[in-house]
Order: sequence, then structure tokens, then C-alpha cells
Amino acid sequence: MLERIRKENDIKELDMEELYELSGEIRRFLIEKISKTGGHLASNLGVVELTMAMHLMFDLPEDKIIWDVGHQSYTHKLLTGRKAGFDDLRKYGGMSGFPKRKESECDAFDTGHSSTSISAGLGYVEARDIRGEDYSVISVIGDGSLTGGMAYEALNNASHLKKNFIIVLNDNHMSISENVGGMSKYLAKLRTADFYTGLKRGVTNTLHKVPVVGDSVIEKIHRTKSSIKQLVVPGMFFEDMGITYLGPVPGHNLPLLCKAFKEAGKINGPVLLHVLTEKGKGYGPAEEYPEKFHGIGPFDIETGDVLSKKEKDTYTDVFGKVICDIAAHNPDVAAITAAMADGTGLDRFRRMFRKRFFDVGIAEAHGVTFAAGLAAGGVKPVFAVYSSFLQRAYDQIIHDVALQNLPVVFAVDRAGLVGNDGETHQGIFDLSYLSSIPNMVVMSPKHKWELADMLRFAVAYDGPVAVRYPRGTAYDRYEEFRAPVVYGRSEMIYEEEDIAVLSVGHMFEEAVGVWKSLKEKGYRCTLVNARFVKPLDVEMVERLGRNHRLLVTIEENVQSGGFGEHVLEFVSRRKVPLHVLTAALPDDYVEHGNIDVLRKETGIDRQSIAERIIETYTKVVESI
Amino acid sequence: MLERIRKENDIKELDMEELYELSGEIRRFLIEKISKTGGHLASNLGVVELTMAMHLMFDLPEDKIIWDVGHQSYTHKLLTGRKAGFDDLRKYGGMSGFPKRKESECDAFDTGHSSTSISAGLGYVEARDIRGEDYSVISVIGDGSLTGGMAYEALNNASHLKKNFIIVLNDNHMSISENVGGMSKYLAKLRTADFYTGLKRGVTNTLHKVPVVGDSVIEKIHRTKSSIKQLVVPGMFFEDMGITYLGPVPGHNLPLLCKAFKEAGKINGPVLLHVLTEKGKGYGPAEEYPEKFHGIGPFDIETGDVLSKKEKDTYTDVFGKVICDIAAHNPDVAAITAAMADGTGLDRFRRMFRKRFFDVGIAEAHGVTFAAGLAAGGVKPVFAVYSSFLQRAYDQIIHDVALQNLPVVFAVDRAGLVGNDGETHQGIFDLSYLSSIPNMVVMSPKHKWELADMLRFAVAYDGPVAVRYPRGTAYDRYEEFRAPVVYGRSEMIYEEEDIAVLSVGHMFEEAVGVWKSLKEKGYRCTLVNARFVKPLDVEMVERLGRNHRLLVTIEENVQSGGFGEHVLEFVSRRKVPLHVLTAALPDDYVEHGNIDVLRKETGIDRQSIAERIIETYTKVVESI
Repeated sequence: MLERIRKENDIKELDMEELYELSGEIRRFLIEKISKTGGHLASNLGVVELTMAMHLMFDLPEDKIIWDVGHQSYTHKLLTGRKAGFDDLRKYGGMSGFPKRKESECDAFDTGHSSTSISAGLGYVEARDIRGEDYSVISVIGDGSLTGGMAYEALNNASHLKKNFIIVLNDNHMSISENVGGMSKYLAKLRTADFYTGLKRGVTNTLHKVPVVGDSVIEKIHRTKSSIKQLVVPGMFFEDMGITYLGPVPGHNLPLLCKAFKEAGKINGPVLLHVLTEKGKGYGPAEEYPEKFHGIGPFDIETGDVLSKKEKDTYTDVFGKVICDIAAHNPDVAAITAAMADGTGLDRFRRMFRKRFFDVGIAEAHGVTFAAGLAAGGVKPVFAVYSSFLQRAYDQIIHDVALQNLPVVFAVDRAGLVGNDGETHQGIFDLSYLSSIPNMVVMSPKHKWELADMLRFAVAYDGPVAVRYPRGTAYDRYEEFRAPVVYGRSEMIYEEEDIAVLSVGHMFEEAVGVWKSLKEKGYRCTLVNARFVKPLDVEMVERLGRNHRLLVTIEENVQSGGFGEHVLEFVSRRKVPLHVLTAALPDDYVEHGNIDVLRKETGIDRQSIAERIIETYTKVVESI
Repeated sequence: MLERIRKENDIKELDMEELYELSGEIRRFLIEKISKTGGHLASNLGVVELTMAMHLMFDLPEDKIIWDVGHQSYTHKLLTGRKAGFDDLRKYGGMSGFPKRKESECDAFDTGHSSTSISAGLGYVEARDIRGEDYSVISVIGDGSLTGGMAYEALNNASHLKKNFIIVLNDNHMSISENVGGMSKYLAKLRTADFYTGLKRGVTNTLHKVPVVGDSVIEKIHRTKSSIKQLVVPGMFFEDMGITYLGPVPGHNLPLLCKAFKEAGKINGPVLLHVLTEKGKGYGPAEEYPEKFHGIGPFDIETGDVLSKKEKDTYTDVFGKVICDIAAHNPDVAAITAAMADGTGLDRFRRMFRKRFFDVGIAEAHGVTFAAGLAAGGVKPVFAVYSSFLQRAYDQIIHDVALQNLPVVFAVDRAGLVGNDGETHQGIFDLSYLSSIPNMVVMSPKHKWELADMLRFAVAYDGPVAVRYPRGTAYDRYEEFRAPVVYGRSEMIYEEEDIAVLSVGHMFEEAVGVWKSLKEKGYRCTLVNARFVKPLDVEMVERLGRNHRLLVTIEENVQSGGFGEHVLEFVSRRKVPLHVLTAALPDDYVEHGNIDVLRKETGIDRQSIAERIIETYTKVVESI
């Protein structure tokens, strides 16, 4: 059947029997492909029928489907003719794991971060009405994403605007891990409600909203509506906000889903269609361990075992162990995650220090101000969060933490290039946005031992501090370079003259490569580990100015507002006699792909940097 | 009576008769003082009794009161012995208009931006329990602030954590202007509910939660609870989230308020106390025009008229007029505000183009992604927003707008120093956070005519663009300098040699002063208006490099990541033979006060800059 789907709407040619067959084929296809390339599996298996139903009931690309977060769009990609793309899924130059407008007209909006789909969908709805167009807009949001405040802001606004708009609540009772919060408990209650009652109720509501004057049935319904509403109807929370609630609908029953979409299409104003799905549906190991199969590398289909055996600690592992050790000796240390206990390495902390562990939901903004409150109350909070997600809380860091100089530790994971997740997940802005904030201290470790030392320093420090480290295996060479972490001090690794390389955090690995390459070619070269991005070790820069001509900064962050520009500013202001060469990411988004490839493409791999250094140094020497 | 209040808890010495007298005195005091100094009036008059009740029922500073936004904390300041501070309210070196921990131990948390109080309060609650302490935490949040997503994230988390925590919903049916959204409509319904029923209901709930085993009354209540809940009880929305709802309580009835706090204190777990207040209560003009009296300059008490007659247009006025003119000729232009139609000058647009005007509530994050959706749907959205509030949507600009290169116009008002509102409201980070975002264009006008030209350019431009302008009177000199706005091009104002001054936006006014001062002292000086912060006009910088020695950048933004550093980076990278001097704000928060005073204090006034230029230029010349 999958062979017959060559483009959008081809699915409409199939009969019910064939559709059942198709759903099975899609599942087998996804399991087989992702077992080879890696990718998001469990969430995609959960929405096979839901996606099929939408493709059956709506017309693409005229109608707009917006996928919240977007990692569940694989079936959508299959049904819009992108089957071949799965061979190069998430590889450089290949198909993205998220919806991309530049990839297909059927991808209405690019997503990647949580809780944006209702806002974007509402934008489409109003644009449609302003321009006098006529199409349906469907935002598909998970119950996890519904913990994000933006989603609530958008619901609030949608109910005010009263325009036709379908919001699908894809409720699998999970974020990446188990969902938390009052809303989650509320949804749990709804799940047990009867579908037909809910549906009937929705229809009643519709009838009420259709202005058929003088119809006595309608009048009667109208009169009894408020009491009915109070008595039997699930979804009051949404109804209270002014959103018609339909459901809950069993999410793997294609005919019922189609029927529900038909009903939803009849309703005037915003409607929330509550669909119950199962993460990992149809693949035993994923049903059993949905968290493991959320985003996974290549795995064995028979056993569900991940193929690439991890032999070394990642930075995340190191963080997870060290923070537990710190907390064991300091009863005031608490840890916070925004629905990422496993991803950030806090799963062990959660087990060991239950009362000091807080999963706030997908709610980074609240998480940061909550941390500020904890700190004001005398606790030492450590917020472990991915770099690109912390962007959500930029204002809260400025306004609630740093302004009051509160001692909150930010453990900024997935900093720098993250690889296969691509543009939306690269952590390439944090050095810029964090170091422009007054009172912030920003550090980054060169290897696993330094991460441990920096975390201990950060917890002991009496002010806001960020420790920034990347995704992946922790660098475990040069343990001998483990001088105590001292506030604002960088670390001299190898001292010579002429050329000085000053690298930030994990780019030390590339810097060592650069240094070796320069040494091999006969250049004299000093190597320094910056340690602190803020405050800058100005003494070190002045010291380097005495016997070097060229100072090279290396960082995996955008150039603009990054470490290199801060060094440059100091060198210029104090007239340090150094030419500065900054190696950083260009002013552009960086797509998905292997990190080594991405570094080459953006010119921050060791070879490109070494070449630029030699070229620049030659000019500097000539100009004297 | 006010004389007898010398410090916190002194209010407890008064009897009911005296308390009534006190409330009158407080109102008269606030009206009189604010009529002279200016400040937030309407919101403060609305919470006189509420504040008194909290001070009567709780012990400060042990118990923690957290004021959302914080501009309603004047009575709190009076009751904690800061009466004398009102003479210098919001003046440089004087008392802040917001809670400040450094001002008083009774200010538990600094606020200024909306919707943070529940998060911060919850942090205190958990810190208290982790440290085994025993105090009450009360967050006071307005119905306007409740439209912010952070507040919902925090409610969601509070209900999950189930700790004792009092949230006061100060419901005056207003943001700064009328409140919007589904939640607002819902609260309107609650307001009509009966207080005693609500209170009784709350008590019932309490009883249920107290584990008195075998008590048949409790068991009975327990059995009938769900049906009771469905039938008569207001506040289901909050109850559904797991927050006990109490109210609504009339907010100017002191004994009832005290009683309500007593009840709230008995409840286990989080409780939301719904208090109905009236903005401007007790002062006729403020009751009638609460929006005008939200934040106001000195005014005549008798008439309510503002004393300082505004004679000239502000930048906000210019924006408001021009955007209407643009919209009149382009049916695809829409305008968005986050609860600031008046503040941003969109009130006229709201009246003229009702269907293309969107007040999204205090919800900047949603507002930006909503704008992205509008743009994806073919509409040209203009989001008018204060610089410091746009920080809330930093991730959404990166992720939803700029990544897809969507044509959203950001009209960034209150950029640079804003004056009396102080630290939380200074718009001094935007050049840094906006210019580090790929695809963004960042512009800033030197005078009122250029703002108009830039807005027209921005609306015509096919990509994300920010136009940044300050609070206050628009500069209206040098109209003759109005060359057409060309992408990425700066504007030569006066061309000489030796020293070049390159200024950003409204700092042109200071730059002219600097230029005049240098000319008077016999220096040759070129003056250039940058226009574009991003992209940088590199041709101009190279041209200046041909016959100048010193290039001076002037901007009202923090140094880190700002315009100056970008110029420096280019000059260094391309080896332009120029020494660069950057005049920008230091790495620190800037407190409240008159803008001229603040510029002097931070060294970016014309005199300080001119002195630094002469000093630097002398050294540059000597070093050749």
C-alpha cells in the first residue's frame, strides 16, 4: 500500500481494508528505517492512525496541519511523498526529523521546541480570515506540550477570538518521560470519560452555536445547557476557557477518528479534540519503554537493544553523578528539570533525593523563576536544561535571577552543535545571551574532570552561574591538567610565544588538534583553556600580549556577542598589542548532521582553523 | 494613624475604627504624593484594604508576600515604614516604585515584569519545606498577569507539589487596559457568584483534606463532593488543576478579607483566594479612568488633569500615526500588542482596524509565534512591544520567526534607558539579543521622520525586522537629513576626517552634542547615523578607515554583544586602520531616575563621551 502513496491525498484512494493494511506497513517501515538511522520512534508509532485520519479528512497543502515539537511528523512525511527521504533521515543534506517548510508545501510551520503550535495555528486562522481565504487549520499538541505556558496563552487568545480552529490534544500521558502537573492529573480524569457522551455533547454545543432561530429543540438545549454542562460533561476546563471540548476519542481507531474530525469541522469557534494515543503503539519494546524509544540511535528490531554500545561517559553522565555526590554532602542543594530528567542526567538525583528534585513540566520560564524563589529562600538550586530550551527563560534569567544576584546554578547541557536534531536544537547562542547579562558567571569545561570541578565551584559560588557543556562523549584526555578552578582565571596548558590559542570548553579538543598541527608545521604556539567566558581573564590576555602576535579564540557559538568579541573588545580598549582571530559559528542557523561534518561546513574544525591561523599569522608578520 | 505606623506589624496595634481611618489616610497620602511625583496610582488605590489585611493576618518579614509586577506595592511600603521614601519616589537614589530586597527585608522578591509571582512564591514554599522552616508564602497576582503563560506553568506545578501556599487573585477586571481572553471571561462569571457559598465550599474542601479517620461527616462530604463540586461551586477551573478555590471576596471589606485569609491559612495545599478589587478605588478620576491613572505623571488632584502638558510628539505617537497610515493603504497589515494598546500607541489602530488588531494579553511569547503564524499565512504583522518585555519572547523570535525568515515587524518601544521605572524596565539588552539572531534586521531611527521612514521600509521588507526607538519626546531637529532608507546603509551627516562618530538611533542627539563639542575644541570630526545595527554598513566603516584615525560608536545598550563590538569585530577582521572607541552601557543593571542623570552616571552623556574621545584620540595620535 505504501507504494501507492506517492504524494499528498493519495491516501484518499484507499478503502478501509487497504487503510488498515497501510497502517501496518507504515509501522513496519518506521521501525525498520529508524532501527537503522536512529530517530524519534515511540511518538511516531503513537500517531499513525491520527495522521492518517487527518490526511483523509483534510486537503493538503491547502489545509494547514501544525505539529507541536514536530518529532511526531514521520507518518505525515510518508503520506506526503517523502518515503525515500528516510534513508538519509537526520543526516547532513538529508531529510530533517522535524517539519520544514523548505522541505514540503505540506509542512505548514517549522517546529522543534514545545508548545508553539496553537499560537502558530491561531496566526494562520486569523491570516485566513483577514485575507478572506477558506481553509482548515489543525494544531496537534501533546499533553506534555500543554504544560508549556505558551500553549495556555494561545488557548486564552483563541477563545477570545472565537474563530474556527481545530486543536488536537494528542494525549499519551507522557512528555518524553511521564507527564506532571495539575493539568496532567486533570487529563487523566478525562481519559476515563465516555467517548460517545463527549461526542454527543460536542454536537449539542454545535447545535447551540448554529443560529437557527425559533427552533424549539435548540431553545430547549440552550436552556438546559448550563446544567448539562455541569453534570455530565468532560472537558469543563477547556469549556470554561471558551473552547468546545470533544472526546476523548480512542486514537488508534481510524473510523472513529475520522468521525470525530468530521464533527470537529462542524463546530463554530475553537474546538479541542482530545485523542488518546499510546506511545510506541505496535512495537512491543517501544510500548514497554516509551522513554527509551522517544529518540533513539540504531537498534536491534528483535530485542530492542541499542546497537552502538556506549563505552564512555557523556558529559551528561558526569553531571548526573557529580551532582548527586554534591547533594549527598549538602542538604540545601536541589535540582530542577523541565521534563528532561533522563536527558539531563537527573534520573539518579530523582531517585536519591526525591524531596529536593523538581520536574516542573515543559516550563523553562517558570523553572528559572522557581529556582530564583528557591535561592531567595536559602536553597541552592541547580537547573539542568538544554541550551536551546533555556532560550525560553532569557527574560527570567535577567529579571528574576541575575538582577537580584541570586545563587542559581544553570547546568547548560547540549551546548554548541548537537547534531542530528538540527537547527532548532543547536545550542549556539548561549554564550552570547548569557554573557550579556549583568552578574552572570559563564564557564565551560574542557574535559570530564573539569566539568566536575566547575560544578563544585558553581554550587559554592554566591551568585548566578552557568556551566555549559555539550552533547556526547566527555573528553577524557589530559587529566593532568586539572588545576583548581579559580574565579575568573583561565588555565595555561602549554606556553610558548608568537601564536596563542584560547579555546572555550569542549572546543579544547579541536584546539589541541590545531595546536599539534601548528607545532608540526614549525610554528611556536601557546595553548590556553579559557574556563571562564565571563568574567574574561584579562590578566591572561595581557600576559599573552607580551610575547605573542596573534591571539586565536575558538568557541562553538555564534560570532555575534560571543567569547571572541569580548576578547576583541578588551584587546582594543586596553590596546593590548595582539592581533585577534576569532573562530566561531557564522551568522546563520546550522542544519542537522554529524557534528564533525557540521564543524567542517561552518569552518570551526581543526583543519580550517589551523589554515586560517597560518594565513592570518603570515599577514601579521608581514605587516610588521 | 499613618504617623503610628513606623515599621512592619505596627498596624496590628490599631483597632477596627482606627483601621478604617488608616485606610482613608493611606488613600489621601498616596493621591497627594503621587500627584506630585507621578507613579502608579490606580492599582495602588485598589489594594489598600487587601494589603492591610495581609499585614494584619501575617507576620513580616518572616512570612513572604510576593507582589506580581510590583507596581501595586505602595501601601505595603507605607506599612513597612517607608513613608518618607515617597518624597523621592522613582527618583535617582530615591525609593523604587517596585519591591526591592535591598530596600527592605519585607520585600521578599523583586518584581517588575508580569506573571512571575507564583513561580517565585512556589520556590519559597519548597525552600521552606526543604530547610524545615515554618512561614507562610503569599503571592498576589492580578487577573491581567494571569494571562501570562508562566503563571499557568506555576499553577500547574503548584498543584503537583501540593504544598501550603496562598495565591491571591487580585481581580480588578483590568490589565493596564481592559483584560482579554477566555480566562478573563471566566473570571467575570465567577465575580457574580456568592461569596459565602464559595467560602463554605472552601471550608468543606479543607475538612475533606484533613485526615480525620472515621468521621462520618467527613465521609459523607467526601462521597458527595464530586457532585457538589459540579453543581454549585465557582472556581472549577482552578479546582480542576488541583488548587482549592476560595471566593470571590469583596476586596474593600477589611473584616471579610481578614476572615478569608484566616480560612485560606487553614487549608492544606495550594489555595487561590479570589479578591474583587476596584482600580482607582476612592479617587473619582482614577475610578473613572483607571488606564490613565495606571502610571501617571504629576497631576492636579481636583481635576485629575496631568500637569505637564505634552507639546511634542513622542516616538510612540509617531509610531501610532504612521502605522495607521500604512495599514490604511495595505489591507494585509495587522498589529499585535501584549496588553499595551495605549502604551505602544496602538489605541488608534485598534479603533480604525478592529479586525486586524490583536491584543493577545500579557503573553509576549504567544504574541511572537502568533505573529509568525500570521506571516506564514500571508499577513504582515507588526508587533509593538516594549524592549524589556520582548525579552520574554527571545526563543520565539529565534525559533518561530527568524529561523523561517518570516516577515514579522517588531516595533520595539521603550528601548534604551526608560527612566523612573528602573532596572526591570530598561530596554538595554535588545541590540545584543536581537543582533545575534540570524536573519534579523535591526534598525534604529535618529529622529521622528526617520522612524516613519523605517517603519515603511520594515513593512515592505521580506524578512524579520526590528525597529527600535525610545520612550519620550521624539527628536524633531535636522529634518533635512532624511535620505531614503536603504537596506544596510548608514547615513553620512557631516564628513570631515580624523575622528568619526557613528551613533545608533536616538543617541544621535547626544552624538550631535559630542560633535559640536569636538568642533568647538578644534577637532575635525565626521558624524554618521548608523541606521542599521544589523547588517552593519561595512562599506561605510571601510570608507571611514581611509581618512580617520578614531572611530567612536555610541549606543544606549550594554556593551556586551552590542553595536560597538560588532563594529570592532569587522574592523579587526578586515584590518581597517581605525582605532575603535565604544561608548555603551557598562555591564550592570541601571536603576531608576531621570534619563539625563542615568546617562551621566553610566558615562554615555555627551560630555563624558567627548572627554573620552579627546583622551583616546590624543593617545592614538601620540602612538603613531
